[in-house]
Amino acid sequence: MEATTFVLFGATGDLAKRKIYPALYNLFVDQKMPQSFSVIGLGRRELSDEAFRANVERSLREFSRREAHDPVVMKNFLSAFRYNVLDVSRKEDYRKLRQLIEQQEEKLRMVPNRLFYLSVGPEFFETIAANIHESGLGSANGWKRLVIEKPFGHDLQSARDLNANLSKAFTEDEIFRIDHYLGKPMVQKLEVLQQSNPVLQALWDNRHIANVQITANEIVGVEERAGYYDHVGAVRDMFQNHMLQLLMMLTIQLPNNSTSEDVRFKKKLVMDSLEPLQKEDVRSHVVRGQYEAGMIQGKPVAGYTSEPNIPAASQNDTFIAAKLQIDDYFWRGVPFYIRTGKRMKDKSTRIVIEFKEPIMQSKGTDDNKTPNLLVFEISPNEGISLQLNTRDPLHKGEFKPMHIDFHEREDNVPEAYENLIFDALHGDSTFFAHWDEVELSWQWVQPILDAYEENLVPLHLYEAGTYGPAESDALLAQDGYHWWFDDKPVQNNEAIKGEQYAYHTNN
Amino acid sequence: MEATTFVLFGATGDLAKRKIYPALYNLFVDQKMPQSFSVIGLGRRELSDEAFRANVERSLREFSRREAHDPVVMKNFLSAFRYNVLDVSRKEDYRKLRQLIEQQEEKLRMVPNRLFYLSVGPEFFETIAANIHESGLGSANGWKRLVIEKPFGHDLQSARDLNANLSKAFTEDEIFRIDHYLGKPMVQKLEVLQQSNPVLQALWDNRHIANVQITANEIVGVEERAGYYDHVGAVRDMFQNHMLQLLMMLTIQLPNNSTSEDVRFKKKLVMDSLEPLQKEDVRSHVVRGQYEAGMIQGKPVAGYTSEPNIPAASQNDTFIAAKLQIDDYFWRGVPFYIRTGKRMKDKSTRIVIEFKEPIMQSKGTDDNKTPNLLVFEISPNEGISLQLNTRDPLHKGEFKPMHIDFHEREDNVPEAYENLIFDALHGDSTFFAHWDEVELSWQWVQPILDAYEENLVPLHLYEAGTYGPAESDALLAQDGYHWWFDDKPVQNNEAIKGEQYAYHTNN
Repeated sequence: MEATTFVLFGATGDLAKRKIYPALYNLFVDQKMPQSFSVIGLGRRELSDEAFRANVERSLREFSRREAHDPVVMKNFLSAFRYNVLDVSRKEDYRKLRQLIEQQEEKLRMVPNRLFYLSVGPEFFETIAANIHESGLGSANGWKRLVIEKPFGHDLQSARDLNANLSKAFTEDEIFRIDHYLGKPMVQKLEVLQQSNPVLQALWDNRHIANVQITANEIVGVEERAGYYDHVGAVRDMFQNHMLQLLMMLTIQLPNNSTSEDVRFKKKLVMDSLEPLQKEDVRSHVVRGQYEAGMIQGKPVAGYTSEPNIPAASQNDTFIAAKLQIDDYFWRGVPFYIRTGKRMKDKSTRIVIEFKEPIMQSKGTDDNKTPNLLVFEISPNEGISLQLNTRDPLHKGEFKPMHIDFHEREDNVPEAYENLIFDALHGDSTFFAHWDEVELSWQWVQPILDAYEENLVPLHLYEAGTYGPAESDALLAQDGYHWWFDDKPVQNNEAIKGEQYAYHTNN
Repeated sequence: MEATTFVLFGATGDLAKRKIYPALYNLFVDQKMPQSFSVIGLGRRELSDEAFRANVERSLREFSRREAHDPVVMKNFLSAFRYNVLDVSRKEDYRKLRQLIEQQEEKLRMVPNRLFYLSVGPEFFETIAANIHESGLGSANGWKRLVIEKPFGHDLQSARDLNANLSKAFTEDEIFRIDHYLGKPMVQKLEVLQQSNPVLQALWDNRHIANVQITANEIVGVEERAGYYDHVGAVRDMFQNHMLQLLMMLTIQLPNNSTSEDVRFKKKLVMDSLEPLQKEDVRSHVVRGQYEAGMIQGKPVAGYTSEPNIPAASQNDTFIAAKLQIDDYFWRGVPFYIRTGKRMKDKSTRIVIEFKEPIMQSKGTDDNKTPNLLVFEISPNEGISLQLNTRDPLHKGEFKPMHIDFHEREDNVPEAYENLIFDALHGDSTFFAHWDEVELSWQWVQPILDAYEENLVPLHLYEAGTYGPAESDALLAQDGYHWWFDDKPVQNNEAIKGEQYAYHTNN
């Protein structure tokens, strides 16, 4: 892998500590970092290199998925870290930064490849990008890349403005927009599973699939993010980015040996085929919810408008359920139900594919036969589960669902940030959001934002610790469906007793 | 369930002890026996009821899958047992038996339903059936049923003769021919799985399936059965009955809510569609093998002709591999490879369905991508496994197979004999071999027997502890396939570490 200087804006921030340092460290231990690399941490406050390294080491001990730390490996890893103070708006600081980077590159005889990772608030994106450009930091004789995190804009127009400004300093090929859901291992597997397995391909269309349910339930409420969240809501915070990305990753039809260009082109095709909502239709396709007080895991929790720093009259959405349709050859007629919310009964991100019953079957008398389901569990556990019907030989006539599952333990699963940083270092943009996708997502979501703004859609209150307002269930019920696995987790630990499982991989 | 008198010929035999008593007991504990039942054990030697019950209890303690035995339940169970001495050819003994049964029925106010279970050598079948008939044992005012075990004839003609003789005493509806492979839970699930799962139905034909492999490998050699086995061989002992039954159960295309008549009718259709072999074609479709000395699990074992009581010049087959084709709409063009042998490297009965790769895919560069496989493990473990291709996000380009599995622990699986006795008590003949199937199986196999007899097929020697002669591999290789899971078990215990599994059923 090419030598890289990893320039990290926001080096003393929470994301850096929890995600970025552990990801870099795990990649380093797995020998997936470039032979030559250095990390330049940037932050507002003064910090010696030693103090910075001590901070990094602390974060690794706290947040790395690895338990044992080889002191030699740790020392080698930390030796790549330098710290520099930087005020994002002081041009002088960028000049100093440039000198530091050039010194390092010279000392280590590194090609001047520079990855700028903006782990800072979105209000700083444009300033930093402009200053990187003006200071000449990005015009060395190697490559440059910009890695940024959500939110990418607040609505369609602000996203377009932001992109226009970033484009003055970086080309689209150089911009790596992180949607960390795209880094989750199971999401990355969706593409491979579909592409390399004929049995899945044979089932992957509207002849076999009745509906698709994409759920991202959180238990937490607004937490300390009141100031941010009350202006954003579930639509912007989760739906426009993560949920629509999951939809795209699931529904793209890829050729064999597809490239990252194929993936991004096909995702754009999906967004192009997504039936647009008019502002007036939002009410019939979207359920807007906000949590009230309730009980979560046996403890009372406050309602949204009683949370600290949330205005008592806030109309902000903490839940959304929506019905979407993709108007293409493969998916025409298959409803996609998407929901995400805070203060749900359990924490789970998953995709459930419900298969059709042949007409002949649905006329049968087997009332307790359930549809076949293919479940991709994305978090907190990773797993694939296929639900089939079976029957105990000694209970003739009584069908029971049988799940065949694969689950990986969390410590074996690379973190989303490991996957994404690895890819950014390689310049592989497969699992980053292209501007086209971001723009089309905002465009699709904009009528919802407008309808909310104009209060064309009722705000349904729901009790914390439930699965959202009853209208969410009604959205599916009108089509003859229901949300799967509410009050019935995919894995039922009670039933695990007495069964044994096996799984293996061969190389 | 209707009151039943279970009349057991061969009550002191090995099968009774190992299989029949434990099965009756487990059904009793699970409350699956009729409210009123009695068991009349019959044997050549004198035995008091008490001694007989003590024998039964001993067999339960040794062979029942249950570990704990409630003394009250045990006592109630044993109280249903009576013993009567009987010489199968003495008509007088049948009259006495009839008296005993009638007394019991009167005492317990039972409808005279009588199930005659012939756990004796096949040479006694006709005599016993005739004597039951003549003694009036079978003409009471309830139903009568005859349960018999393999072998059902020695070739097509002897099977026809046997059936003609049994038919004088029992109608086809009254004859329950046990093929204990049909009692194995996973075999019984094949029907249900296919019938009640649209995702399997969608894949269940020659458009999606490349080939099917049915394997029954044994580790044991001829053991103490030399006198019997040397006149029978793998074709008669395993292939004509168990292996062809597995083929039928896998390939029948069933309507929803099918009855036992449907199942047996469809099985007959499969046998009718099986492309017949001519004696002259056997050589190109069948591999005949006999084991030589070798190592099994680290220990040297003798070759077949060095086994006690086997003639040194025996040409008997201990292994068969065959290629079969079903000429119907669903299966035309799908080769079925069937093999079974003694002194194989491991013990395993399984069905492997290998799916086709789309043409597009096979041109790809993904050399380590393997076909999708659906594996039904029948014994010694029960399980279903779906092998898909996946890829580690951090090892781009390298495919690895991923198995999603379901396994049940052995002590939760009802024994084949439990299922079969339960069905016989209910008069459900779904999982018993109909005469039509037996006759068609013998008919299909007869050219093989003839070709062996006339030595038109070479006898390939194979080393004990292998997977049979090289010609077995060549049989598949000429079609571009190979046997799956030789030297690579479906479950790899090494790889289980670090992964966790879940499975659950809901009712």
